[in-house]
Amino acid sequence: MPSPQAPDTPLPDGPGGPLAGLRIVELGHFVAAPFCTRVLADLGAQVIKVEPPVKGDPVRSWGAQKDGQSLWWSVHGRNKLCVTANLKDPEGIDLVKKLIAQADAVVENFKPGQLEKFGLGPDVIEQVSPGCVFTRISGYGQSGPRSKQAAFGVIGEAIGGLRHLTAFPPGMTDLPPVRTGVSLGDMVAGLYAAIGMLAALWERGKLGDAAGKGRVVDTALTESVFSLLEGCLPEYSALGAIRQPTGSTLPTTAPSNAYKSKGGEWIIIGANSDPLLQRLSTLMGKPDLPNEPRFADNQSRVRNMAELDAEIGAWTATLDVAELEAQLAGADIPATRVFTIADCAEDAQYLARDMIRPVQDPLVGEVLHPGIVPHMGDENAGGIAWAGPPVGGHNREVYGGLLGVDAATLDNLQEKGVI
Amino acid sequence: MPSPQAPDTPLPDGPGGPLAGLRIVELGHFVAAPFCTRVLADLGAQVIKVEPPVKGDPVRSWGAQKDGQSLWWSVHGRNKLCVTANLKDPEGIDLVKKLIAQADAVVENFKPGQLEKFGLGPDVIEQVSPGCVFTRISGYGQSGPRSKQAAFGVIGEAIGGLRHLTAFPPGMTDLPPVRTGVSLGDMVAGLYAAIGMLAALWERGKLGDAAGKGRVVDTALTESVFSLLEGCLPEYSALGAIRQPTGSTLPTTAPSNAYKSKGGEWIIIGANSDPLLQRLSTLMGKPDLPNEPRFADNQSRVRNMAELDAEIGAWTATLDVAELEAQLAGADIPATRVFTIADCAEDAQYLARDMIRPVQDPLVGEVLHPGIVPHMGDENAGGIAWAGPPVGGHNREVYGGLLGVDAATLDNLQEKGVI
Repeated sequence: MPSPQAPDTPLPDGPGGPLAGLRIVELGHFVAAPFCTRVLADLGAQVIKVEPPVKGDPVRSWGAQKDGQSLWWSVHGRNKLCVTANLKDPEGIDLVKKLIAQADAVVENFKPGQLEKFGLGPDVIEQVSPGCVFTRISGYGQSGPRSKQAAFGVIGEAIGGLRHLTAFPPGMTDLPPVRTGVSLGDMVAGLYAAIGMLAALWERGKLGDAAGKGRVVDTALTESVFSLLEGCLPEYSALGAIRQPTGSTLPTTAPSNAYKSKGGEWIIIGANSDPLLQRLSTLMGKPDLPNEPRFADNQSRVRNMAELDAEIGAWTATLDVAELEAQLAGADIPATRVFTIADCAEDAQYLARDMIRPVQDPLVGEVLHPGIVPHMGDENAGGIAWAGPPVGGHNREVYGGLLGVDAATLDNLQEKGVI
Repeated sequence: MPSPQAPDTPLPDGPGGPLAGLRIVELGHFVAAPFCTRVLADLGAQVIKVEPPVKGDPVRSWGAQKDGQSLWWSVHGRNKLCVTANLKDPEGIDLVKKLIAQADAVVENFKPGQLEKFGLGPDVIEQVSPGCVFTRISGYGQSGPRSKQAAFGVIGEAIGGLRHLTAFPPGMTDLPPVRTGVSLGDMVAGLYAAIGMLAALWERGKLGDAAGKGRVVDTALTESVFSLLEGCLPEYSALGAIRQPTGSTLPTTAPSNAYKSKGGEWIIIGANSDPLLQRLSTLMGKPDLPNEPRFADNQSRVRNMAELDAEIGAWTATLDVAELEAQLAGADIPATRVFTIADCAEDAQYLARDMIRPVQDPLVGEVLHPGIVPHMGDENAGGIAWAGPPVGGHNREVYGGLLGVDAATLDNLQEKGVI
């Protein structure tokens, strides 16, 4: 069936933003690479996401669904131009190369070596698109003995050393270390990859052709997580100290903990300074608490943390969480309930800063999306031009409008399963 | 006492890297802004960190110490040029303005409004250094009803919605949600701020003066964390679903969990696909397990997750963690012990990729530092030129070499407490 659309259908305008004019081809799936490009597309980059025909990115079926459509995808795929190409077919590869030829950067998260097998290794990218920044994300990096192993986020986060620290101290419970309840390692790796790409593009803007070949940015999930471990490594090497988890407390300052309210909800209180503890103690009706030697300074408080937390917990157990929040805010003590997504959606600060945005999504109807991070000012600051599109939703616009492939050829490629 | 050094002491060379030639002034303290600039300095940016005279950044006294020096600081301050300036003194402000006049970007994380009080608001920055990117990090953002409240990481992470998900499901334990054991929100905000800054610099490289005034990048810790919540917000808005924590498991696929080994250490196993579960079952000596209706497909496995995990846990309890790792690796099943920092330091993959680097630190001796993320290729890829310097360690080089202030004047400024 011939397409009713003209082959030169123009590309739709993105949200605008500081990165308008930057073209990125995404050969990504699951979380890390698509998250990297979501952040960049939010700031105005034109992201052309290449997916396998028909089924597309597996994340399209992840998480809670509405009308058979993933709601996560609505956010994960927003602002992107979605095309299909079978990377196992030479005609599919040919299309992708033509896209890359017009791109400033490529982002991918295949298992190391896989893109080379498809004929899309760094040398090919450089030949097709001199100076193009080849941004690679993988579990363990492109080199080394573990590089070819299958990478799962939960494994990578454990190897990154974060899982060990996200737990209660030994002896406090028989429960295992907790998973940070999102794909944290993938997303942190996506952020590092974006930084690496933009750094390489800045260099190119400064040096032009003198920058030489396009950079290959090699981002490992494990290493991205490992980079967040504060002073753990020098502390281990200099002192033999192995940082241990501290549950819901901070290891070096007190009081800072989660305390149970009368209704059973938790309230986080950070009163870990002399003036804060004085104000909290007054609020608790025990103004002399900070004068007791066991709580007199931070060192003493850390040593007697359990006793201090018991005092505070005895007070929080007498009040509902909303009352606790009000009293603590009145005394200017940092505190909050533990926000669920419902709390986030109704929060005055998020609303005031346009972080809760209604979006018309043709696949699932009107939904709320998180806003743009970071804020880039009042004008041309990025935004949400459209929600995650259907599989191949922009084949006509991209292959027709950008590459000039005519409608009959596109129909033929679709029939053959190339797109 | 007159300085023995010439006033025109040259600035030391940084590690090189894609961002060589980019000059950033950091008005930061604690974690978020200094982490942002650490990542950028690792990639070659010249970061001039401005600290209060004498005591410097409070993080210099955080965490485990050696010879009275923080080991975290060794990493946190690496590659930076450290100068002192009293921001409450007009002469200090004057020096900082002269630095900013020569900078491409400023990074700061004071409480919103504080820099304006010092006379260093966005208009002043733009006047002093037209086009300079003013990169701001705060707990809740520069605007909105909560903006002026004191921001603590643990509070911001709870408002960001992550703390609620980093917990065991209701009813499983009376223990509170766990803190991810590092300053996660600060560091994620730092990464977003770096992306915003580089995006604004890319735009400026492309548009030049046509880009107009320098961007103000407004990064909130809460919003940075909130942006990681996958599909939680659209799921809530479309279905009324409030995502709940799932402890050490994944909510939508099984088996993926932490299991106890014979010796008591935890092993993470991700066998959440049909072929992986088949291989794991064979290894466990129960090859027919996947044929049982309760475990026959992912949906059934999620429904009967506890039973399946009990089967796997019964097997892991019979073997030591090293033996489990060996057997699971042999069967190509993603698995790992939960790495402590000692495991990281000795890991063959990290070592092969130069992620464990010995650094000579004049303050604490030889220590190990984590390597550079991301990898930027073999040449000019960033690195570690020096460990975190002492307070004011580069006053002579920066104020003398860069601003041309003579030694006698510097001595006088130091005596007066300006630097």
